[in-house]
Amino acid sequence: MGERIFASYWLETGDDPQRAAEVIAGEQSSGTFVALPTETPELKRRSGARVERLEVIERVNTPSLPGGMQSDVYTRCALQISWPVENLGPSLPNLMSTIAGNLFELRQVSGLRITDVQLPPSFAEAYPGPAFGIQGTRELAGVSCGPLIGTIIKPSVGLSVEETAQQVRELVAGGIDFIKDDELQADGGYCPFDERVSAVMRVVNEEAGRSGRKAMVAFNLTGDLDQMKRRHDHVLAQGGTCVMVCLNSVGIVGLQAFRQHSQLPIHAHRAGWGYLSRSPHLGWDYAPWQKIWRLAGADHLHVNGLRNKFSESDESVIAAAKAVLAPAMAHKPMPAMPVFSSGQTGLQAEDTYRALGTADLIHTAGGGIFGHPTGVSAGVEALREAWIAAMKHIPLTQHAVTSRPLSQALEFWR
Amino acid sequence: MGERIFASYWLETGDDPQRAAEVIAGEQSSGTFVALPTETPELKRRSGARVERLEVIERVNTPSLPGGMQSDVYTRCALQISWPVENLGPSLPNLMSTIAGNLFELRQVSGLRITDVQLPPSFAEAYPGPAFGIQGTRELAGVSCGPLIGTIIKPSVGLSVEETAQQVRELVAGGIDFIKDDELQADGGYCPFDERVSAVMRVVNEEAGRSGRKAMVAFNLTGDLDQMKRRHDHVLAQGGTCVMVCLNSVGIVGLQAFRQHSQLPIHAHRAGWGYLSRSPHLGWDYAPWQKIWRLAGADHLHVNGLRNKFSESDESVIAAAKAVLAPAMAHKPMPAMPVFSSGQTGLQAEDTYRALGTADLIHTAGGGIFGHPTGVSAGVEALREAWIAAMKHIPLTQHAVTSRPLSQALEFWR
Repeated sequence: MGERIFASYWLETGDDPQRAAEVIAGEQSSGTFVALPTETPELKRRSGARVERLEVIERVNTPSLPGGMQSDVYTRCALQISWPVENLGPSLPNLMSTIAGNLFELRQVSGLRITDVQLPPSFAEAYPGPAFGIQGTRELAGVSCGPLIGTIIKPSVGLSVEETAQQVRELVAGGIDFIKDDELQADGGYCPFDERVSAVMRVVNEEAGRSGRKAMVAFNLTGDLDQMKRRHDHVLAQGGTCVMVCLNSVGIVGLQAFRQHSQLPIHAHRAGWGYLSRSPHLGWDYAPWQKIWRLAGADHLHVNGLRNKFSESDESVIAAAKAVLAPAMAHKPMPAMPVFSSGQTGLQAEDTYRALGTADLIHTAGGGIFGHPTGVSAGVEALREAWIAAMKHIPLTQHAVTSRPLSQALEFWR
Repeated sequence: MGERIFASYWLETGDDPQRAAEVIAGEQSSGTFVALPTETPELKRRSGARVERLEVIERVNTPSLPGGMQSDVYTRCALQISWPVENLGPSLPNLMSTIAGNLFELRQVSGLRITDVQLPPSFAEAYPGPAFGIQGTRELAGVSCGPLIGTIIKPSVGLSVEETAQQVRELVAGGIDFIKDDELQADGGYCPFDERVSAVMRVVNEEAGRSGRKAMVAFNLTGDLDQMKRRHDHVLAQGGTCVMVCLNSVGIVGLQAFRQHSQLPIHAHRAGWGYLSRSPHLGWDYAPWQKIWRLAGADHLHVNGLRNKFSESDESVIAAAKAVLAPAMAHKPMPAMPVFSSGQTGLQAEDTYRALGTADLIHTAGGGIFGHPTGVSAGVEALREAWIAAMKHIPLTQHAVTSRPLSQALEFWR
């Protein structure tokens, strides 16, 4: 009783900002477009959403999004709204309808982006969050400090089962910590999931028998729920230690139901994130989005990478990673591991470490490892040494004096 | 074997359009940012996505979305890409990662909107689509022709169980065909789901005993999968004939898994649609989006309404409704029922009917029914008569001569 949910927004409106904020709070709780006699003051006090904060940022002359009300001036604001949990119960799907439902379609809105969400303790009781998180992942991967050095099987799709296993053979012989399927690799006829997993795990288990340390492979088991469960069981039976799920492709209920079944860390891919975030005037910031998925069970969350090949700024990448590392709730942190990828080499280690202050992350590189002139093993070692330098605050060129693989890597990393 | 998936896009790019199209096709299949020796011509032929069509629409000087490559000119195109089903298997979640994954984040993209998807027969084998659709809904609701005349319980949230049942009592006594929960009404402490369903169905069943026709009530059971299944069983046990799910709140896997369990029509709400569609330069058109959900099992799909209170244009509303009514696949139409709402009265009946050429739809009105001076019964009859006029091509004012409820309604509908 008395618990509230708080969501923050960047709002642009052609209306009076206070009125627009009240319309949003109304539409998302007890109000509607026409005044109703049954919406009594008592009902409104009990169930109405509340405008907690409204700060004008700036005014502009043209609306960012079409379809809203016409005006000479559009006001941009920081808005915070709160809801009684009592309205919906501690439910992530119903949280979505409440904080990110119809409001984006309102005529009062010419720009709306959700920037934060704060959830009360009842949500932590309903959703246990990541089953493995940082600590559990480190234990399974046998990496007690520093980042997990990882890579992605490439080409994304099109390799046969045997070609995939051959690529994994090179990687595990080279001492890699982490390998993942591309998000496009699923259960196609040319490279069926079960056969791929069996062939890859045979290679991984053999190498683990030799080295005493088992590389973690995130197999993309994205699919319908019964398929995901069955595939998970196959991965587990073959001795696998991780599975991958594309979050936007399955949805919150899919992840939550899978989390209840899973005995392995869930590597969460954000494919489709662009359509949720690419307009600065619409959609989602990463902070609230990743929090919902963490509660639903994501152990690792993709955050792109510094100086990536996509369109995201470094500032946005670091903000995303910090959000993943920040406590989900004060009394229940539910830590997850950020995953850096896209155009990554050891050159990004220093800046990444400096920005985050931790190496509790997975750093995946493709060309940065495979491109090493003396092979995959040296590529993995070079990336690991670059992180040692970063964590010891030693300039990369200075540390390279002590590591031949690193000094060679500095020739082709750029 | 040999089946392909086709997706169409509106693309804006600062790059040469042909090159941008190839980058998109590559990123979403066997390509990556660097050329790989393992991406052989044979692999590319087998697994590569193919640019099927690229037509320049216009050129502009400023990019619609930030973060992409800088250029003096940005070219807008109609693009169609195809993929071998073999890459992923007939899987809706993996379809999402393929047609709507990383591509939105590419630097070559300064605008990208998915406008259509065409799926091969194997998808129809994997996903049976709506279990009830138009015909099944009509049978359960006892409405053989014309639209289902419906309404939404208001205030959206905050009524007690008894107040909700009282509102339903008035509506069913008034002869309404269809009632739905608001998408914010879930399983809160003040109006718990089970009690609400029991109380409402007691009223509905009583009236059905008198009239011989049972009003269809769509109870919003959006929640985690086990909750949705349990709530469904309760609705079924109480004699209910419909359930409602908020699609974006549960996700595709959630809906598909629930569809396998459900014995009732699934009324699909699109809360959150705004963040997927409100920018004309990003995200989703309704046509491809609704098709995916129909395959996953949606029987009714919300399409807003003509002259609605939100920001969507009439043109967009009609395009959405036509998409819902169009065959999902030539050999397997999987018809679903469009749901019109928001600021609706009998005044929109004629235009809606003329635009669609069918009354296979649900038309919900709030104020348009409750506002009737002689009560709910007259409000329902007025809306029904407005549709009879529309379907017989009789001007509303002329038809009103034969219907006192309609002539009274014309005084307050506006």
